[in-house]
Amino acid sequence: MTDDLLRKAEKPARDAMKWHPFYRGKIETGIKCVVRNMDDFSVWYSPGVAAPCRDIVENPEKVYEHTGKWNTVAVVSDGTRVLGLGDIGPEAGLPVMEGKALLFKYLGGVDAVPIMLDTKDPDKIIETVLTIQPSFGGINLEDISSPKCFRILDILREQARIPVWHDDQQGTATVTLAGLINALKVVGKKIGDVRITFIGSGASNVACSRLIFEWGADPARCLFVDSRGIMGEYRDDLSADRERFPQKWNLCQITNSEEREGDTAAALKGADVVIALSKPGPGTIKQEWIRSMNDGAVVFVCANPVPEIWPWEAKEAGAAIVATGRSDFPNQVNNSIGFPGIFRGALDVAASTITDEMCFAAATALAGYMDGNLSADNILPTMEDWEVFAREAAAVGMKAQEQGVARFKRTYDELYENARKMIQHSRGITGLLMREGFIEEPG
Amino acid sequence: MTDDLLRKAEKPARDAMKWHPFYRGKIETGIKCVVRNMDDFSVWYSPGVAAPCRDIVENPEKVYEHTGKWNTVAVVSDGTRVLGLGDIGPEAGLPVMEGKALLFKYLGGVDAVPIMLDTKDPDKIIETVLTIQPSFGGINLEDISSPKCFRILDILREQARIPVWHDDQQGTATVTLAGLINALKVVGKKIGDVRITFIGSGASNVACSRLIFEWGADPARCLFVDSRGIMGEYRDDLSADRERFPQKWNLCQITNSEEREGDTAAALKGADVVIALSKPGPGTIKQEWIRSMNDGAVVFVCANPVPEIWPWEAKEAGAAIVATGRSDFPNQVNNSIGFPGIFRGALDVAASTITDEMCFAAATALAGYMDGNLSADNILPTMEDWEVFAREAAAVGMKAQEQGVARFKRTYDELYENARKMIQHSRGITGLLMREGFIEEPG
Repeated sequence: MTDDLLRKAEKPARDAMKWHPFYRGKIETGIKCVVRNMDDFSVWYSPGVAAPCRDIVENPEKVYEHTGKWNTVAVVSDGTRVLGLGDIGPEAGLPVMEGKALLFKYLGGVDAVPIMLDTKDPDKIIETVLTIQPSFGGINLEDISSPKCFRILDILREQARIPVWHDDQQGTATVTLAGLINALKVVGKKIGDVRITFIGSGASNVACSRLIFEWGADPARCLFVDSRGIMGEYRDDLSADRERFPQKWNLCQITNSEEREGDTAAALKGADVVIALSKPGPGTIKQEWIRSMNDGAVVFVCANPVPEIWPWEAKEAGAAIVATGRSDFPNQVNNSIGFPGIFRGALDVAASTITDEMCFAAATALAGYMDGNLSADNILPTMEDWEVFAREAAAVGMKAQEQGVARFKRTYDELYENARKMIQHSRGITGLLMREGFIEEPG
Repeated sequence: MTDDLLRKAEKPARDAMKWHPFYRGKIETGIKCVVRNMDDFSVWYSPGVAAPCRDIVENPEKVYEHTGKWNTVAVVSDGTRVLGLGDIGPEAGLPVMEGKALLFKYLGGVDAVPIMLDTKDPDKIIETVLTIQPSFGGINLEDISSPKCFRILDILREQARIPVWHDDQQGTATVTLAGLINALKVVGKKIGDVRITFIGSGASNVACSRLIFEWGADPARCLFVDSRGIMGEYRDDLSADRERFPQKWNLCQITNSEEREGDTAAALKGADVVIALSKPGPGTIKQEWIRSMNDGAVVFVCANPVPEIWPWEAKEAGAAIVATGRSDFPNQVNNSIGFPGIFRGALDVAASTITDEMCFAAATALAGYMDGNLSADNILPTMEDWEVFAREAAAVGMKAQEQGVARFKRTYDELYENARKMIQHSRGITGLLMREGFIEEPG
């Protein structure tokens, strides 16, 4: 079975090596205004274009009316932590960011532009993003290494005039929270009561814990495990490194009130939930450790491409619910069901930021989508559920208005309807171009 | 007649104010690869995409094979010298850069991305462009004020790994040279013999003179006129400002060997050619001054939107050939017949730079396009002549190979055929989307 799965994972890689050189890029510039003859260029370019330019000078907000800024997101990366590949640099990371832009457009109708940075210096990354703001309605940071990604995001959220999002942090956290909300519904436990063990202390899991604690989990009942074991104030290495990794040291303060010490095995004893975003396994988590968890154990093993324990092994050991990062198992925890809808909503009200409360609105919409269909093997929607993106967008847009971070006023129905149209537009064009031979089948 | 013309120029402005808010942007992200179902995302994104990423790590050149870098150009501006509007800032300049991106795609099949910079500092502009290089196959600088634009271009041409082009310099110069080549053919004069008076000493005219001198004109026989009169070593103001405007002081050294002094009137006496890129007129150039030029006078009056003298007035005063920047008169000198083809060719061989010789190749292709149809009112092709872009592309690509600045080897026919395909692709999709209602007629 393991061999079979690994062979299955090889097919996308084989296809990718054939298809990428066939298309030489996944996205291109699309023209969205009429060009019937060259006279139209006198409206779109000189001399006519001077009029909207002047209008923006007089009313700076009109840039959201006369240009595509309102719907354009930069996907920014320095290529220092790409997928499971590590620091591969900006050029080698570009195929991933183009893929991200493709998902943005296809799933959320968002125009996205990959911007790879030829620097690893956090201050230069911050400065570059601030400098390129004017063309964009939002910034999606991607695959930037930890711990610098924390400071980059914090400073940019504070200083940028447009929303800045780090999908590895907020995106993963939002979708994980949505999954957790539904998993706890299925096993009948309350967020304030559960003991959660987080395995892996990278940017994603730190962000997950932040949202989950804000949502109502009690940090004191929770444990973090990094490569050296359970985190806590007893750990001299973390104390010594507290300047470099303040996020980790802070977690030592608020989690693990019982001052437990030891390894992953020790960390799972009596846990209700495990959220693992660590090294690709399997073997990182053993069956006997799952057996030591409480009844109705919720097991999120999200390392890619291979989870920390195979789902069937976890189930056999008594897990009530197992989620992974893979599409070929039930309960995929996948960022792609988050960011396209969340940005859709933030852009449609021209939000100045994406708050944690907007993430909660998105997580609630994601979780609520399963109402009526919720079961142990069905806790989250998939990318196929196009409507979930429109619901997320509307929920996020409404929350932004409630919190006073929105430029535009829109009703829920307007937001929902606009998102639906934008998504159908992307899909419709792609389908048409395939039917008409402008997009060929891969060689 | 003048009123009529001005009224004509108002229509594009009126349409622009209606059409821009209707479309809210001229370009969007287009999807150019198959998406038949969500399984395709496992090839375009995680996990499949890891394979081409790894391939680029091992062979950095493969970024030109696995991604859209090869065909993507950043249109970079700080909005300090936008059209005739001056320093209107990055947001207000965005409609122009989106228009430029539209022309890039429609006329040249080039994917272009507007990047507006929130800084006016030349060093920060240089650093930002160098930092964002990895995603792009070329950089088009646009509407950056003089004199800083000279240094920015020079440094970037030297330091960037991809071609950096300032369209207001090289683009205008290439198209102007093409027009001049043909104008001299019509009047039967040789480039080495003519006296040229350049009116206006902005970035465009300085660049025009550079290319025209390199092409064979004798600087000693030429004059430059700025807002204070004929330029020369006698001008204390230019001598005092030589640090700030080294380009202007340098022109004082090499032009005006007869040490002529005076105003525009004095500068035009006995000239064969006038190339005016100065303040929008009319009235900047008077009829009697044209009468004082040599027989077979060539008059390029390219201020936008209103030329320095109306074409019929210049003709009446004896000009043999008149060219302007406007599409509603004969002989439009328009950057738009240059950059789409020039970048098409540079990108198709993945050139590391665009040399002046590549500009000459483009100018020769532009001029040669009129062979057989050349006349006093027909010295240049127009944007309607789609084939000229393919010829320019092929000529530029061949020259790049000859000069050893090309990564890829291509024959003339391959370059021509590829350019033709790319251009037909853009036009074909736009036409299809209009027919199918994805692009609606404006309001």
